[in-house]
Amino acid sequence: MATHSLFLLPGDGIGTEIMVEVEKLIDWTNSEQLTDFSTDSGLAGGAAYDKHQVAITGEDTEKAKAADAVIFGAVGGPKWDNVPYEHRPEAALLRLRKELAVFANLRPAICYPALADASSLKRELVEGLDILIVRELTGGVYFGEPKTITDLENGQKRAIDTQVYETYEIDRIARVAFDLARTRKNKVHSADKKNVMKSGVLWDEVVKGVGKDYADVELHHILADNAAMQLVRNPKQFDVMVTDNLFGDILSDVAAMLTGSLGMLPSASLGAPDPITGKRKAFYEPVHGSAPDIAGKGIANPIAMIASVAMALRYSFNMIELATRIENAISAVLSDGLRTGDIAQDNRKTVGTEEMGAAILAKL
Amino acid sequence: MATHSLFLLPGDGIGTEIMVEVEKLIDWTNSEQLTDFSTDSGLAGGAAYDKHQVAITGEDTEKAKAADAVIFGAVGGPKWDNVPYEHRPEAALLRLRKELAVFANLRPAICYPALADASSLKRELVEGLDILIVRELTGGVYFGEPKTITDLENGQKRAIDTQVYETYEIDRIARVAFDLARTRKNKVHSADKKNVMKSGVLWDEVVKGVGKDYADVELHHILADNAAMQLVRNPKQFDVMVTDNLFGDILSDVAAMLTGSLGMLPSASLGAPDPITGKRKAFYEPVHGSAPDIAGKGIANPIAMIASVAMALRYSFNMIELATRIENAISAVLSDGLRTGDIAQDNRKTVGTEEMGAAILAKL
Ligand SMILES: CC(C)[C@H](C(=O)O)[C@@H](O)C(=O)O
Ligand SMILES: CC(C)[C@H](C(=O)O)[C@@H](O)C(=O)O
Repeated sequence: MATHSLFLLPGDGIGTEIMVEVEKLIDWTNSEQLTDFSTDSGLAGGAAYDKHQVAITGEDTEKAKAADAVIFGAVGGPKWDNVPYEHRPEAALLRLRKELAVFANLRPAICYPALADASSLKRELVEGLDILIVRELTGGVYFGEPKTITDLENGQKRAIDTQVYETYEIDRIARVAFDLARTRKNKVHSADKKNVMKSGVLWDEVVKGVGKDYADVELHHILADNAAMQLVRNPKQFDVMVTDNLFGDILSDVAAMLTGSLGMLPSASLGAPDPITGKRKAFYEPVHGSAPDIAGKGIANPIAMIASVAMALRYSFNMIELATRIENAISAVLSDGLRTGDIAQDNRKTVGTEEMGAAILAKL
Repeated sequence: MATHSLFLLPGDGIGTEIMVEVEKLIDWTNSEQLTDFSTDSGLAGGAAYDKHQVAITGEDTEKAKAADAVIFGAVGGPKWDNVPYEHRPEAALLRLRKELAVFANLRPAICYPALADASSLKRELVEGLDILIVRELTGGVYFGEPKTITDLENGQKRAIDTQVYETYEIDRIARVAFDLARTRKNKVHSADKKNVMKSGVLWDEVVKGVGKDYADVELHHILADNAAMQLVRNPKQFDVMVTDNLFGDILSDVAAMLTGSLGMLPSASLGAPDPITGKRKAFYEPVHGSAPDIAGKGIANPIAMIASVAMALRYSFNMIELATRIENAISAVLSDGLRTGDIAQDNRKTVGTEEMGAAILAKL
């Protein structure tokens, strides 16, 4: 029996194409006996809806829970714009996050040197950029109840979403951020809207409390709107930024876009360590979406997806060396001048999904 | 008796310094008989707290409601970091927005040609940028109930904020956005998180409904996280963006920062027209904050504050010509090479608040 199990959920659009490159990578690491992975795969998003009329089946959800790590592609596309709300493609993602209880979403925003010119920001502002957004992923307005639309007597409607946070949810995500800061530049910015939201007041209070256990880490409070501004103004002032589910959604997208490397950025979503085995449920996915406009053309960038596997090796399997080898292979291929269409540059060679995947494998 | 009344609330920090330049401007327009304004002024934010232990008194709130337009500086500063939550400086702003019922917050993000290089974005991406963010200002998570922190039996706390929107609130802000788009490039982007939030689902449904009354205006839906990304990637794709209170807070700050002209950007908050007189309550303020770090030094940029008065002339008093004259004076002074410290450039002359105000007056 294999030592570790991976559950692959390619999803929709380019998700299926870039997952093929992941399978090739795993075949290779297995055949080189660098890993001993068993893999299984399932359907998520529109693909699952087309077959089972739900965004993800209970069976696939159980498989995801049983696996050592889930590798997820991307979901969604115009084809499913009008499916019932509870079965829309995104529901797969939300269900998996909740059922796997992967509360800590790590979104590195790294500017690959070879791509610094692809950023819309001036080169000197993003060159060498390395921010880690730590987003709370299983609470807040994403999951709080009531979450309803009701008909009013006057013929109008009222929609309600509820942002809820309890102390323990903030405490555990803050600890993840501080622990990670210790492996980096020892600096944490905590972003909230405590000037308007009670959840922000509690957020700040709990983060400051946790900060006392990390006296060696610099802690800064920042309002979420100012955080968005400062990311644009001078992103290199940040090291780790910890924030709630909704602000994290927006701020991590801004941070990712700054790098000019959107098609290159992976993410990890981690649960709490099991008290007995120490294992934590984990979910890895690229930051980019399913890109329906370029799906099926073989031109999607597989790097974020491959880098997500590197993150899995690092965070779920403690295979730091192999993770670094893959990350270095990605950098090397970029330095050689290979580009997919999304990062095409003059005097560089534009290749397709398969060729990019093969080039990275060849470097390994 | 004067024809129109202005109520000035300088607030804290640089708010008081830049308001002085407004007073000089109004003295001049009155003396030239271009306007016939009476002015009165009050205290808001920390200044009010220091004197009255509240962020704004009932009396000043009533004066604001009675005035034809409120001109607001900025509030807040570290001095008031530990005042009770309900009396924090920002509470003045929130109370005024709610009591004046100024639901439509107009935040233009304009890149002044003379300042295109001050943006952190590449010049070609922001040169000529002219976006108008239309933010819903009196609803959503800012004001929804419950908004509480409660003690739980396990010794922890639970914080709740509630995002609530009713059909009429979305309908009226959408109409403001579409009406304004007609005076511009006829394009509206509506930003929400309908893939996660029920308020986003209702938002989108109502905006699309209103859109049917504006068949000549192009309407696009965009997810709020993608909107933040696209603002950074390619801001010139946008004309008018309409969004809710919280997303508007963040997206308008990103848009403002893009321009490199943060110290130059005014905003207007408008109520519904009175059914009899047609008058609407109105509140004008710079987009920037109270900048406690540079307060009292006489170096703050008064342009956003002066431009806010120009907006008041335009939206509250229909004095389009005078508004344009002031805006042109601002551009002319910049073209002449005058700069305040926040926008200082090589080969340009750096001046203080007073000198900048005087130079604009001189151009008039
Ligand atoms: C697809 C959507 C539900 C999701 C989110 O809002 O969390 C996405 O934007 C993300 O950031 O992973
Ligand atoms: C000061 C604060 C309450 C306010 C807000 O959040 O609305 C500010 O950020 C703004 O955008 O006007």
